[in-house]
Amino acid sequence: MDTIKTWDGSDITPELLQKMDAYWRAANYMAVGQIYLKDNPLLRKPLSKDDIKSLRLGHWGTTPGQNFIYVHLNRVIKKYDLDMVYVSGPGHGGPALVGNTYLEGTYSETYPEITQDESGLKKLFKRFSFPGGIPSHVSPECPGSFHEGGELGYSLSHSFGAAFDNPDLIVACVVGDGEAETGPLATAWHSNKFLNPKNDGVVLPILHLNGYKIANPTVLARISHEEVENLFLGYGWKPYFVEGNEPTIMHQKMAETMEIVLAEIKAIKQKAADGDTTRPIWPMIVLRSPKGWTGPKFVDGLPIENSFHAHQVPIADPIGNPEHFVLLENWLKSYHPEELFDEKGTLNQDLQDLAPTGTRRMGSNPHTNGGLLLKDLFMPDFKEYGLQLSHRGQTGPGDTLVTGTFVRDVVKENMEKRNFRIFGPDETLSNKLNAVFEVTNRQWEGDTLNTDEFLAKEGRVIEMLSEHQCEGWLEGYLLTGRHGLFNCYEAFIHIIDSMFNQHAKWLKVTNELPWRRKLASLNILLASHVWRQDHNGFTHQDPGFIDHVVNKKASIVRVYLPPDANCLLSVMDHCLRSKHYVNVMVAGKHPSPQWLNMDEAILHCTKGIGIWDWASNDQGGTPDLVMACAGDVPTLETLAAVSILRKNCPDLKIRVVNVVDLMKLQPHTEHPHGLTDADFDALFTKDKPVIFAFHAYPWLIHRMTYKRANHNNFHVRGYKEEGTITTAFDMTVLNEMDRFHLVLDALDRLPMLEQTADYLKQEMKDQLILHKNYIDENGIDMPDIKDWKWDV
Amino acid sequence: MDTIKTWDGSDITPELLQKMDAYWRAANYMAVGQIYLKDNPLLRKPLSKDDIKSLRLGHWGTTPGQNFIYVHLNRVIKKYDLDMVYVSGPGHGGPALVGNTYLEGTYSETYPEITQDESGLKKLFKRFSFPGGIPSHVSPECPGSFHEGGELGYSLSHSFGAAFDNPDLIVACVVGDGEAETGPLATAWHSNKFLNPKNDGVVLPILHLNGYKIANPTVLARISHEEVENLFLGYGWKPYFVEGNEPTIMHQKMAETMEIVLAEIKAIKQKAADGDTTRPIWPMIVLRSPKGWTGPKFVDGLPIENSFHAHQVPIADPIGNPEHFVLLENWLKSYHPEELFDEKGTLNQDLQDLAPTGTRRMGSNPHTNGGLLLKDLFMPDFKEYGLQLSHRGQTGPGDTLVTGTFVRDVVKENMEKRNFRIFGPDETLSNKLNAVFEVTNRQWEGDTLNTDEFLAKEGRVIEMLSEHQCEGWLEGYLLTGRHGLFNCYEAFIHIIDSMFNQHAKWLKVTNELPWRRKLASLNILLASHVWRQDHNGFTHQDPGFIDHVVNKKASIVRVYLPPDANCLLSVMDHCLRSKHYVNVMVAGKHPSPQWLNMDEAILHCTKGIGIWDWASNDQGGTPDLVMACAGDVPTLETLAAVSILRKNCPDLKIRVVNVVDLMKLQPHTEHPHGLTDADFDALFTKDKPVIFAFHAYPWLIHRMTYKRANHNNFHVRGYKEEGTITTAFDMTVLNEMDRFHLVLDALDRLPMLEQTADYLKQEMKDQLILHKNYIDENGIDMPDIKDWKWDV
Repeated sequence: MDTIKTWDGSDITPELLQKMDAYWRAANYMAVGQIYLKDNPLLRKPLSKDDIKSLRLGHWGTTPGQNFIYVHLNRVIKKYDLDMVYVSGPGHGGPALVGNTYLEGTYSETYPEITQDESGLKKLFKRFSFPGGIPSHVSPECPGSFHEGGELGYSLSHSFGAAFDNPDLIVACVVGDGEAETGPLATAWHSNKFLNPKNDGVVLPILHLNGYKIANPTVLARISHEEVENLFLGYGWKPYFVEGNEPTIMHQKMAETMEIVLAEIKAIKQKAADGDTTRPIWPMIVLRSPKGWTGPKFVDGLPIENSFHAHQVPIADPIGNPEHFVLLENWLKSYHPEELFDEKGTLNQDLQDLAPTGTRRMGSNPHTNGGLLLKDLFMPDFKEYGLQLSHRGQTGPGDTLVTGTFVRDVVKENMEKRNFRIFGPDETLSNKLNAVFEVTNRQWEGDTLNTDEFLAKEGRVIEMLSEHQCEGWLEGYLLTGRHGLFNCYEAFIHIIDSMFNQHAKWLKVTNELPWRRKLASLNILLASHVWRQDHNGFTHQDPGFIDHVVNKKASIVRVYLPPDANCLLSVMDHCLRSKHYVNVMVAGKHPSPQWLNMDEAILHCTKGIGIWDWASNDQGGTPDLVMACAGDVPTLETLAAVSILRKNCPDLKIRVVNVVDLMKLQPHTEHPHGLTDADFDALFTKDKPVIFAFHAYPWLIHRMTYKRANHNNFHVRGYKEEGTITTAFDMTVLNEMDRFHLVLDALDRLPMLEQTADYLKQEMKDQLILHKNYIDENGIDMPDIKDWKWDV
Repeated sequence: MDTIKTWDGSDITPELLQKMDAYWRAANYMAVGQIYLKDNPLLRKPLSKDDIKSLRLGHWGTTPGQNFIYVHLNRVIKKYDLDMVYVSGPGHGGPALVGNTYLEGTYSETYPEITQDESGLKKLFKRFSFPGGIPSHVSPECPGSFHEGGELGYSLSHSFGAAFDNPDLIVACVVGDGEAETGPLATAWHSNKFLNPKNDGVVLPILHLNGYKIANPTVLARISHEEVENLFLGYGWKPYFVEGNEPTIMHQKMAETMEIVLAEIKAIKQKAADGDTTRPIWPMIVLRSPKGWTGPKFVDGLPIENSFHAHQVPIADPIGNPEHFVLLENWLKSYHPEELFDEKGTLNQDLQDLAPTGTRRMGSNPHTNGGLLLKDLFMPDFKEYGLQLSHRGQTGPGDTLVTGTFVRDVVKENMEKRNFRIFGPDETLSNKLNAVFEVTNRQWEGDTLNTDEFLAKEGRVIEMLSEHQCEGWLEGYLLTGRHGLFNCYEAFIHIIDSMFNQHAKWLKVTNELPWRRKLASLNILLASHVWRQDHNGFTHQDPGFIDHVVNKKASIVRVYLPPDANCLLSVMDHCLRSKHYVNVMVAGKHPSPQWLNMDEAILHCTKGIGIWDWASNDQGGTPDLVMACAGDVPTLETLAAVSILRKNCPDLKIRVVNVVDLMKLQPHTEHPHGLTDADFDALFTKDKPVIFAFHAYPWLIHRMTYKRANHNNFHVRGYKEEGTITTAFDMTVLNEMDRFHLVLDALDRLPMLEQTADYLKQEMKDQLILHKNYIDENGIDMPDIKDWKWDV
């Protein structure tokens, strides 16, 4: 090895590179140990079958490459005192991160029973991928992790999320070449068009061309060097290649490349600090190294190193197969653990000295346990943004439009702290959060024209037409201790169903780890919802995200359906203050009737569910009928139906129940927000018919209420997958949730009404025909539908 | 305009280009007409307010560019007699496709009431984006469409799916620059590494750099020309740029480019026919043209053409605002409809002559109504692949492994017809469909090494680590009249939740259009399911896809949970023969107990649900307890629980019910497979306790059965979001669905057992502790759990 001149003028000596190689060997040895050994962790005795785990689980293939990267990152962190975190795209390579955080000491600080000696090593090896132990991924249990990588595709989006508003942070993001084939990752390279070089941090992608997936080569490993280079130039990066398999040469190349890359990063940051806001071409590294590097070359005649056979556990049966046993023993010994660990079993001091110290260690960097850094938002008083109602049913300007003024001031109040961002797939205006653009812009580093609106080099809103990116960026932002809001069309939030799953799982597990601090909630505002996609039609209609959400742990998920602007304000305030939840808010954006004054809205949202006395006429008695609703459009149709019933059947006692917090419907034993049976019965009675107009698929209400006494009397209307381009009201008719169908449903369950019912039923049917004819002729709703006012 | 020499030596004259411009004007005129007019469609009278629609909906911005492309494609189709179809990525531009298919005559053939005259034009304009009319997208109602584009991101994947095994087909795929920001589209460019130049067709991507999304510029429009070029070179394409806004010049450029591109395509196809199988670098076109091209330049002082303001309806209020009225009138007149349509209102004959004829018209190409081309698969007799059981509970080799032999022969039998493919995200081996590789390979056009396995230039399996791609390719393949199977890990099928939504919606709507022929079903095999992700841990555990599926129309969705290999064979056979459904099959891949002989399995799967007499002891009487199960692991645990109960409580009458076809549980009024109440009650009784072990989230069973008489006695166990790296059995314990918990659940509901129950409960609790201790110590399950055999 040669001495390398670094950009600060100092040297990287051959001796240092040799030490780094030894450190790498230690990490690789630890990976094999984690996968195979339950005892004799340093081979102080001859390997015996009893030392080997009965079941061997873990992913070897990606691990040595990640260990290689980690040791080279350690060098530059230490040398330049960098604030750096590590994201492992191929998170299956848990042994790499577990091993490295152990070697640098953070693992033992987090889990004191895992001591820095032979006994600690033994415990660590055994607990890896073992029941009651730790997962084999870079899971929440692993210090330094804020990205598990169990599901592939989101490492780069998370990394950019972490970098936003952390100007001094470098996020080293290892992208696996398998992961690189996923859609979300393929578009995430474009995140560099949204990163401000002055105010945001740095993402240093390290594309690991490891060559193989589970059983196939990877696409990027099997195209020409020129194509790979063009691809990343096209994505707006400057790729540096480190390619080979000879460790000595590779250490040299990697160290040199790190120096070049860091010098470029420094120059870009300096230029930005000097006021040049041109979009920089950030450097990245392409590391082409063999899968299962340094592992066995052949097992049972099959090539292992540099082949997909190295993906998981390369030597299958070291207990039962004597050849395998010898292969394993030789493999372990090839790292010469006796040269790496001292008598106690602690990493040699000269190797320990290679790692950074304190919170510069990537396993201890506080950004990776974001709750440590989380500061509450300054919250303006949401009540001041409320609508003053002159009467019930007064038309508001659009619920999200009103809330936009509140969110605008959340943006404003926290502008200096730089810890709140809004993400959306080109829909922040469409979702009517227009007011935020009074105080901020969309952050955009691409070229601009003077006809553009609300685009600037920096801004609190980031928009890209990729729900994956919006979700991934926001998750990365939250995971590193900040706050945010994702606004999205309701139907297309399903695009991130699987990302939501993973984030909910992360929250569930971190909730159970005392050393993990709580994060700000993931807040999702679904405007442009199913009932008002009348102009976009059937493809834009799907309210099923909340079905998906409620499958996750009750301790994590919250769903809100505010019926009007004041309620949405109250809910938004609550969600932005909350911690460690996923909050889903569904709200309308169009001018629509308003029901509650601010004080009433606060009371109603605090309870989450309640009787609307002013709409009911069962005061002080038992109702004949409960009309329940959840969601803005269902509330409107329910109140219209109630007014028809009350006018036509004045003796009928009707109770109106509105649900804001959907989880109230579940039993209190199932969800912390759930009502007790007594409270539920007090609202819904034990035996009266309940007509429930629901925002989403009707079955969800049944699913949540099936244990309740009165469940058999629940009749739920909701979206049942009928829709096209039509009018707003016709959408409710197609799905039989309109006022006339609701009245018909009620009448069917009120035998005591006799002739009144027959007359009214005919009237409702006539109305439906009248409405249909008018729409067919005019393409719009009848004025008395469109401008209907509550006047009971 | 100059005369252009074409690659076949003929000329494109200035006269031809002028005519093409006139045709383009006609299409643009029709687009404005569709958005605005309900009468006076050819402005034969002065425009009046009464001619204008009350509500104006539609997307103008993308439309003129798509019209431009369509007219140029028409020219080359006609000239070279091409078999070409058109995929509209920005499918919101419905006016383009509706207009063009009308101009070429296919629209009137599909909808005879829409005649080729003024009256037909009037009807067409009025029905566009009008209640009871047609959607504003390239929806199923539009002839020539097999990709609606309502949700963005899948145009290119669908196009490649269409091209597979259609060697003479060219799929012209317009990719919007908004859509191009999505993850799925960003990775879909790599599809060229999977397209065989000899046996498959051609995809000609036309990236439309239209510049803007709803309210933002697009990323690809705001990076340098060099970056765009590098990006597509890196993706392995040869990009040709057509850039500008002056129509005369643009026609010339586009025609020239089409000639170059088609010559290259021809050369590639010829080379492949001659045996050169090197991966070709296919040409593509980048069309940079102004959004809202030829539309109004300014409205209310805001720029419209070449700005995001052109996205939808550029002139907002032509009825109420006199200036807007004049702008609209001038805009319409700018196309000179009087020069384009004859007295009757029919497109001038010389323009009509520009379009191809018959099924060469892109609106009439049979590939776009795939059912027209669909041929049934040759199906081997699945019974011949069944396992012969020597006893109940015999360990099989893995249910998907067995089915793999059947699928292998489906592949083999249909090899020559080239109409069956298997798609998977690098998991076909992991999901144990190994046998298929005895007869075919993975199709892979990237570089290969001699250590690779089952990779070849052609093969019936296609694998890329992108669930989006697998799903999109398969959808495209099915939509153009072929058959296929998608195999996937259960947890990660959520990645395509939203794609499933769109396909289910497509199937629902086409079901209702008599001229649309039925397609082969979308078959999804979910192996590597929640209960056997014990080695990958929590991130890999989510059985909620079926919750998502059952929200869609009952006429479309089917869910199967075969308990063993013979049942899976029967289900697979049924699914592969079926039409126009989405079939979800959930099955295990690990060696596991087998329950039914082939004949029994066929009978059981044909009924879809049934009593297992051999496991029950209530023959001829009423049971005290029903033990129900759905899914392989729940069936095992249920039978183990039943055997414990029968041994310890011999007088207890137990009925075992197994569910294969989940939809049987729904009321027959809700789903065509649903049982009548009488049949349901005959299985589950009206009043006996039912302990139901379910594969997925338990609430789904409640949702499906809440209307049944005995519902209140249903106690359902399933996955409740508890998991980590552990053993297979411990996964069931963590979720309280193991045999011991099931016995405890039963005993809680059997008060008549008295002391027997108390004794047995203690025994079950002891067993749970024993099991836990053993696992904690050994990391594997106790032998009597692992090797448990049915022996009642």
